Amino acid sequence: MQKTKIILDENEIPKKWYNILPDMPTPLSPPLNPATKEPIGPKDLSPLFPMELIKQEVSQERFIAIPDEVRDIYSLWRPSPLYRAHRLEAALKTPARIYYKYEGVSPAGSHKPNTAVAQAYYNMKEGIERLATETGAGQWGSALALATTLFGLKCTVYMVKISYQQKPYRKSLMHLWGADVIPSPSDKTNAGKKILSKDPGSPGSLGIAISEAIEDAATHDDTHYSLGSVLNHVMLHQTVIGQETKEQLAQVEEYPDCIIGSVGGGSNFAGLSFPFLMDKLAGTKDVEVVAVEPTACPSLTGGEFRYDFGDTVGLTPLLKMYTMGHEYVPPAIHAGGLRYHGDSPIVSQLYADKVIDAVAYSQTEVFKAGVTFARSEGIVPAPESAHAIKCAIDKALECKKSGEKKTILFNLSGHGHFDMSAYDTYFSGNMLDEPI
Amino acid sequence: MQKTKIILDENEIPKKWYNILPDMPTPLSPPLNPATKEPIGPKDLSPLFPMELIKQEVSQERFIAIPDEVRDIYSLWRPSPLYRAHRLEAALKTPARIYYKYEGVSPAGSHKPNTAVAQAYYNMKEGIERLATETGAGQWGSALALATTLFGLKCTVYMVKISYQQKPYRKSLMHLWGADVIPSPSDKTNAGKKILSKDPGSPGSLGIAISEAIEDAATHDDTHYSLGSVLNHVMLHQTVIGQETKEQLAQVEEYPDCIIGSVGGGSNFAGLSFPFLMDKLAGTKDVEVVAVEPTACPSLTGGEFRYDFGDTVGLTPLLKMYTMGHEYVPPAIHAGGLRYHGDSPIVSQLYADKVIDAVAYSQTEVFKAGVTFARSEGIVPAPESAHAIKCAIDKALECKKSGEKKTILFNLSGHGHFDMSAYDTYFSGNMLDEPI
Repeated sequence: MQKTKIILDENEIPKKWYNILPDMPTPLSPPLNPATKEPIGPKDLSPLFPMELIKQEVSQERFIAIPDEVRDIYSLWRPSPLYRAHRLEAALKTPARIYYKYEGVSPAGSHKPNTAVAQAYYNMKEGIERLATETGAGQWGSALALATTLFGLKCTVYMVKISYQQKPYRKSLMHLWGADVIPSPSDKTNAGKKILSKDPGSPGSLGIAISEAIEDAATHDDTHYSLGSVLNHVMLHQTVIGQETKEQLAQVEEYPDCIIGSVGGGSNFAGLSFPFLMDKLAGTKDVEVVAVEPTACPSLTGGEFRYDFGDTVGLTPLLKMYTMGHEYVPPAIHAGGLRYHGDSPIVSQLYADKVIDAVAYSQTEVFKAGVTFARSEGIVPAPESAHAIKCAIDKALECKKSGEKKTILFNLSGHGHFDMSAYDTYFSGNMLDEPI
Repeated sequence: MQKTKIILDENEIPKKWYNILPDMPTPLSPPLNPATKEPIGPKDLSPLFPMELIKQEVSQERFIAIPDEVRDIYSLWRPSPLYRAHRLEAALKTPARIYYKYEGVSPAGSHKPNTAVAQAYYNMKEGIERLATETGAGQWGSALALATTLFGLKCTVYMVKISYQQKPYRKSLMHLWGADVIPSPSDKTNAGKKILSKDPGSPGSLGIAISEAIEDAATHDDTHYSLGSVLNHVMLHQTVIGQETKEQLAQVEEYPDCIIGSVGGGSNFAGLSFPFLMDKLAGTKDVEVVAVEPTACPSLTGGEFRYDFGDTVGLTPLLKMYTMGHEYVPPAIHAGGLRYHGDSPIVSQLYADKVIDAVAYSQTEVFKAGVTFARSEGIVPAPESAHAIKCAIDKALECKKSGEKKTILFNLSGHGHFDMSAYDTYFSGNMLDEPI
C-alpha cells in the first residue's frame, strides 16, 4: 500500500513560531501614523492589541516560544496531516510528486484558528473581556468565535453584509460558538454610519468591516481588536504549518522544489512557506515559492507597492504593501477570503525583493481545478484553497511536458463545506471569470 | 500537556472486518420471501447485490479480509482519531473519563464511507457500472457519491424530497462528486408514481426512496442497489471503527465501561461497539453498550420485534427487526439519519437478548448537548451524533453524583457542517421536541 498521509504525534506540535523578520533581505518599512507620517510606536497600538502581540509585531527574535495553553488547544486538530496526492497525480498523469498540507481539519475548517487561538490567549492573559473583528466570507470570524469560546471571552464579528445575507451558515457557526455577528456596514459605529449615509444599500466590504471593528475596540476599554491576516504577528503564528510540513517531508526524505499558497492577506501562504524560506534566505536550499491570487483582486501582480491604509475609512496606520488602493471594492468572487485590497507587508517586501513569485487566476479555472481535486482526492476544497490547487495542477502539467519529477507542495488551507452554493453556481454554467 | 488525540499510522488500518454473526447468543432469523414466507437465498439477492456482499451477508467467518484497494481508499482519512474529551469533562466537572471516536474526518463527513467504499469496490469488481441508492438528509448519498467517483462508477441517489428542498448543499456535494440526485417520490419509478398518485405533494420518506432505488436497480442490468445501513454486511464494514478504537484505548491502557452510539439503522453504533461486544460475548470483558435513538422514531424502545419490510412499498425481503411498522413516517426531526422505521436485524437481536441497552431522547435536549459539546471541544456535531453526546453527558453526570471514575466512549459519527439550519432553529427557540 502506498503511503497517503504523513502524520505526526501531538508532542510534535512545534514549540516555537518562526519569525522571518530578522532573515529578510530588506528590512520591513515601519507602519506610519497617517497624521504625522512618523513611525508608530507600541503605545499607539495598545488600545487595540495586547502588549505581547505588539512585541511580536516588531520582534527581531528568530524563534518565539508558543505558550503551553496555546499548544494545548492546537492539539484539538494539530499536527495537521500532510497528504501525498497519489490520485491527483494519477489523474494528471504527471511524473511530479504532489503533496498538500491539509488545514481543513480544524473545527473552524481552515488555518485561521492557528492565530485566533494565540490572539485570544494573549488578550485573555491581559484581562481583556471581548474581541472585535471583521470577517468576509466568515472563515476568520468563525475561527475567532471558536478561539474566544475556548478561552471564555466574548466576541463581536462585523460580517460583510452581502456575505451575511448570502452565506447564512457561516454566521450560524459563529453563533453556535457564542459570537455576536453584526452585518456591516452597521449603525453601531460612526464608520458604518458614514458609509450608510452615502450608500444605504451598501453590500459592505472587508475594508469597511475592519473600520467598524477597530472603532468598536478603540471606543471600549474592555475590548481589543483582532485581525486574521496581514499583520506580522499573524504570519508568525501561522508558521506552525510550515514547520510541521518540513518535519513530515523529512520523514519521506523530500524537500519541495515548489511551494504554493493562495494569498488574500497572505497568512496561509506565509504559514506554509516561511519556514522553507528560512533555508532559502540562508542560502542552504533553493525553492520556488508562488503566491496565488484572483485576477479579480490582484494586489501583487496588479497593484502598487506603497504606503496605504489597511481599512476603507482610514483608521489604521499606513502600511507599506502591495495594494489596489484602500477604496478598491473587489468584484464579488466566491473566494471571499481573497477579496482584500492589500497584502501582508512581509509578503509584499519578499515579492518586491523577488524572493517569491506570484500568479493570478480567474475563478472559473480555479473552480474547475477544485472539482478535479474533489473527484480524485475526495476532499472538497474551499474556493480560496482551490487557487493553490490550480497552480499546483499547472506546475504538475508542466512536469508532464518536460518529464521533470519535481516535488510540488501546496497548502490546502480549508474545506469548502460552507461554499457549496459557489460550486452550484460553477456547475450551472453561470459563473463569471470576474463578476461585476 | 495532556494527551488530546490518540492517533494511529495508516499501516494500522485494520486488515480484517469483524463479523459478529458467529458470536451471537441467538442465531439471526433469516430474511423471508414475502410471497412464500421461505428464507431467501443468494439467487434472490443477486439482481441487487454483488456475490461477495451476499456471501458476507450470511458469512459465519469471524474475520473477513479487507481488500487492499479498499484499505488504500480508507487511508484518505483512516485511521480516524480517538479524542479524550478533557474540555467536556472539565465543563461537566465529572470524574469520568470521556473518549470519542471522530468519524467526521472522512471527506463525506461521517462514518458512511467505510461501507460505501467497500460496496462500490465489490460492485466494480463484478462489472457493475452504476449504483442506485436512497438518502434521507444526505449523509449516505454523499458517501456513496464519493465512493463511486473514486472507483469510476456512476451513481443515482433518490433523495427524500423534503430534504432535497431543505438541505440543498448535501445535494450539491453529491453533484460535485458526480452523482445524479433525484427528489423522491419521483416519476422515474412505478413505486414513486404509486405514491404520487395517492399524494402528489408527498414530502417523501426513507422507506419510499428505498423502494425507488431498489426498483431502479432491479430493472437495469448494469445497475445494483446499495444500502447504507441495516444489512449485515454494512455492520461488518463499519467494524473498522471499533477495532481502531480498541487499539487506541489500549495505547493509554483503557477499556471502556460504557459504549454509546446513536442508532437509525444501526451502522455507526455497530461499527464502534461490535469489536468490544466480541469480548463481552466471549465472557472476557464486561461493558455496558447503549444504543441512542430519537423519541420521534423509537424503534428499539418503542417498536415491536417482528418480521417487517425494509421499505415502504414492500419490495424488500421481510426482516426480523424492531420496527415502528414499514408505513410509519417519522416526524421531521433534524437528525434525518435516525428517521428509519426499523433497525439492523443484528442490533435488534442483541437488544432482544439484552446484550445491549437502548434509550431515547427528544431533539431539544439533544441539541442542547450538541451546543455544550461544540463550545467545549470545538467540533460541531451532526444532530445524529449529538444523540450519543447527550447520553455520554448523562452518564458522566451520573458519575459526578456517584463519584465513579467510569471510562465512557462514544461515537462522534459525523460533523454538522451541513446541519447549521437545524442549529439556527434550536437557537431561535422554535424547535419542537417532536415535530409533527
